[in-house]
Amino acid sequence: MNTTIKIFDTTLRDGTQGEGISLSVEDKLKIAQKLDALGVSYIEGGWPGSNNKDIEFFIRVKELSFKQAKVTAFGSTRRKGTRAENDPNLNRILEVGVAAAAIFGKSWDFQVHTAIQTTLEENLAMIYDSVHFLKTNGLEVIYDAEHFFDGYKTNPEYALATIKQAEAAGADWIALCDTNGGTLPHEISEIVKTVCQNIRTPIGIHAHNDCELGVANSIAAVMAGARQVQGTINGYGERCGNANLVSIIPNLQLKLNYDVISSEQLASLSSIARYVSEIANMHMPINQPYVGSAAFAHKGGIHVSAILRDSSTYEHITPELVGNKQRVLVSELAGQSNLVFKAQELGLDFDTNNQQTKQLIEQIKEMEHQGYKFEGADATLELLMRNAYGLLEEIFTLESFKIMVTKSVGHPVLSEAIVKVKVHGETVYNAAEGNGPVNALDNALRKCLEKCYPGIQNMHLADYKVRVLDDKNATAGKVRVLIESSDFKNSWSTVGVSENIIEASWQALVDSMRYALLSQSRTDHQPEEQRERVGLVNH
Amino acid sequence: MNTTIKIFDTTLRDGTQGEGISLSVEDKLKIAQKLDALGVSYIEGGWPGSNNKDIEFFIRVKELSFKQAKVTAFGSTRRKGTRAENDPNLNRILEVGVAAAAIFGKSWDFQVHTAIQTTLEENLAMIYDSVHFLKTNGLEVIYDAEHFFDGYKTNPEYALATIKQAEAAGADWIALCDTNGGTLPHEISEIVKTVCQNIRTPIGIHAHNDCELGVANSIAAVMAGARQVQGTINGYGERCGNANLVSIIPNLQLKLNYDVISSEQLASLSSIARYVSEIANMHMPINQPYVGSAAFAHKGGIHVSAILRDSSTYEHITPELVGNKQRVLVSELAGQSNLVFKAQELGLDFDTNNQQTKQLIEQIKEMEHQGYKFEGADATLELLMRNAYGLLEEIFTLESFKIMVTKSVGHPVLSEAIVKVKVHGETVYNAAEGNGPVNALDNALRKCLEKCYPGIQNMHLADYKVRVLDDKNATAGKVRVLIESSDFKNSWSTVGVSENIIEASWQALVDSMRYALLSQSRTDHQPEEQRERVGLVNH
Repeated sequence: MNTTIKIFDTTLRDGTQGEGISLSVEDKLKIAQKLDALGVSYIEGGWPGSNNKDIEFFIRVKELSFKQAKVTAFGSTRRKGTRAENDPNLNRILEVGVAAAAIFGKSWDFQVHTAIQTTLEENLAMIYDSVHFLKTNGLEVIYDAEHFFDGYKTNPEYALATIKQAEAAGADWIALCDTNGGTLPHEISEIVKTVCQNIRTPIGIHAHNDCELGVANSIAAVMAGARQVQGTINGYGERCGNANLVSIIPNLQLKLNYDVISSEQLASLSSIARYVSEIANMHMPINQPYVGSAAFAHKGGIHVSAILRDSSTYEHITPELVGNKQRVLVSELAGQSNLVFKAQELGLDFDTNNQQTKQLIEQIKEMEHQGYKFEGADATLELLMRNAYGLLEEIFTLESFKIMVTKSVGHPVLSEAIVKVKVHGETVYNAAEGNGPVNALDNALRKCLEKCYPGIQNMHLADYKVRVLDDKNATAGKVRVLIESSDFKNSWSTVGVSENIIEASWQALVDSMRYALLSQSRTDHQPEEQRERVGLVNH
Repeated sequence: MNTTIKIFDTTLRDGTQGEGISLSVEDKLKIAQKLDALGVSYIEGGWPGSNNKDIEFFIRVKELSFKQAKVTAFGSTRRKGTRAENDPNLNRILEVGVAAAAIFGKSWDFQVHTAIQTTLEENLAMIYDSVHFLKTNGLEVIYDAEHFFDGYKTNPEYALATIKQAEAAGADWIALCDTNGGTLPHEISEIVKTVCQNIRTPIGIHAHNDCELGVANSIAAVMAGARQVQGTINGYGERCGNANLVSIIPNLQLKLNYDVISSEQLASLSSIARYVSEIANMHMPINQPYVGSAAFAHKGGIHVSAILRDSSTYEHITPELVGNKQRVLVSELAGQSNLVFKAQELGLDFDTNNQQTKQLIEQIKEMEHQGYKFEGADATLELLMRNAYGLLEEIFTLESFKIMVTKSVGHPVLSEAIVKVKVHGETVYNAAEGNGPVNALDNALRKCLEKCYPGIQNMHLADYKVRVLDDKNATAGKVRVLIESSDFKNSWSTVGVSENIIEASWQALVDSMRYALLSQSRTDHQPEEQRERVGLVNH
């Protein structure tokens, strides 16, 4: 039997302390359902004593049913010099009707004096009374020992005395918090071991990422005896963030054989991490460990040829275990082996003696020479390959476009675009405004396509990058535009190159839509062959 | 005496394997100078045996002089069944004339069979011969033991035998590589300890971040006896990136008291990390440990009031130690010390009680809030400061501009601009074509100015960068345009921000010309005061 580790998620509480993160009640409810599906044991939903939005969450979350996750309310120990039963904060926790509460108290003598300005004895009483009050009222109680490691390092006896109060009052868990995120793994390990020798209550770890050690500290604590890990999805949180559960869970389960979540749940990790990043409106770094789109992407030619022989040569786990996938980036650094790999993925007959293959390789070489880069533009490459093998229906073609940007002093800039395209042979002509010339083009082209393909409204541009290729000539030089698009399920990237930024953007924009349309149905009719493609682009 | 740890930077080699990272030779030279200033011991500049761009770097880098960093070339052991002296790869390293070489070889028996397909004995000979060849030719040699930890876990005897070959051949360093990034800190620690007992050559660690443990693994290795850390600025690199030196350096120096770089160099960490992210055109995450703009930002009300009493309550280090700063509330307050420094440079009376100073700070705060960044735009900042103190003559003002971009199928794109400005009170109206809309604007504005200021023809735009600020709305989001201009003697940078890329480019373009004109003479007359300014912009 492997040891079980419980996951305590605080994305909805500590995660929202991160700069730029703001979740509506609706957002929180959506994320809570995903967290339950992922298999976390506790969902810390907010601090009912601090604001009404959090109270609304606790009321509305009761309409949902969870498989296993316990909705947990956050709060602090009672105020100094008062009685727990009169503390508004603690009473608010009871009022929202949750099964579990996580309350924090002080472990560091310095903090007792400086932050709450009371005596060490009163702080001990505050901890005991608060835990006791919630236990008496039937709640499961997680006691969060704030600044525990900093406190232990300066006054170990007092730090231990605080959590002994929580134990004596019946706390179900004692979570040791590295609140400032400044503790190193070897310190975490030693201190957790000592605590486990002094305390019978199961221990949790709450780490932050200020030294880029949030994951390492959580793992060190578990290896030293902790049985609960607190953290957030994608490591969202104040300053440098909380410990990232998305890396901790696979590390514990795949590398250290702890029993955390089921393998089916683990296989949903990438999609849940991406979903939360979409809802939180935070860009997911492509290089995020385990779940980023580049986490199993290979660029170097030597690596790629080795991977074709055996993928464990350059991959530490099978990406599918966490719901991710291997990608091979096509670049000048890599030889032809990258293309072979891509062709295999698409099921194409990539025989290098084949005339189509030769032409495709020539075309790609020529385009790379002109400044195209396909490593960040999977979708453009796929379109080129499908086209070379006659597997691409030309849905629309450009007739002309015209862009006008007008600025007069004292007035905002006006950007307009007129687009004329042939969609399935029929000329469509439309104009639109935009916040800039590319946005105006995007809007006008979309208007041309949405009659035939209303599904095009689901896609949106997620990122837009411009790079000047020959910086000697600057604005007279060539530019490469990379566009990342998304339809909430999938994301894909396209590229355009031109001396003209508008032309380069147009190319990338057109490819983005062509790729999206591979999987979209037309309103008028949907040929058999069209439907088959849906599966192919579902990545 | 504290133990010294040497930093081996591979941003320019392994870092460029990261998806979306592409550095020109010019970019690499700029970054190399910053790395030397930061105090790294080795700068791995590229793989001369793999491509001509890397060879050009090694040729041009000789024009620069470094305080301490050794420029290092990367390569692999000789091919199987050949002689080291005939190996083109190894000879290319000698040809580029570097002081140090880092060559990698196989440590994992599985890799010897699968990836290079030779015998275990031949692999040992390949390592010995290659290190010996480079040592005989007078180079310092760092031997990179690829996949060392994976190899050690399956066949410890063979893994040790490979590095013993490197030692016997005279390697100066043996760097143990966690190539796939799948090893955990406790494994790194145990294995490095064992290696240190078996090898007298100093040991380095080369970690990757696939388990979000790159920093922890590097630290574990140092604590177990490694004396060199290989990594990249901001953790750029293939898949999930290399170990992030920007976190490792302060962890080693501030938390573990190793001797890594000087405290002045440490205080430049934030600005160098940001500089590299700008050059690499990679977004720096605001929550990046130590150096991100949110790394010491406080949002929670409780935290903020405690911080006002004593900032160590919620900060693990003093942010200034790494050149960062505390931020409280939503204030985007520009580092006032930077402003004071800049003002002193320009000879301005920067008294914070002064009304002009207060207004300037307000204006800069407001602009930063809108997305302006002055770190990469010295000239725009100087213009703002001169303007605030009444030291800027308004040479020209915009009346209006209009841009048209027209594309018809089968024809090249046509970009035209019409610009109407007042130059010294006189309305000038001109039109021009260009390779793109910004180039057309540039040409038209130049035509308006060159009658009065023929010297404007000497300046040109050297680089043009675009960054989308709110990537959720993509082309509807705000963009920041950075323009670098040069008149062959000096170069200067300007910034513009707008929802419209044309408007943002226009702002940066206008500032670029205004700055250039500070030192240009008019054809009609040149007032005394005008001439004095020439010296001021000479940087």
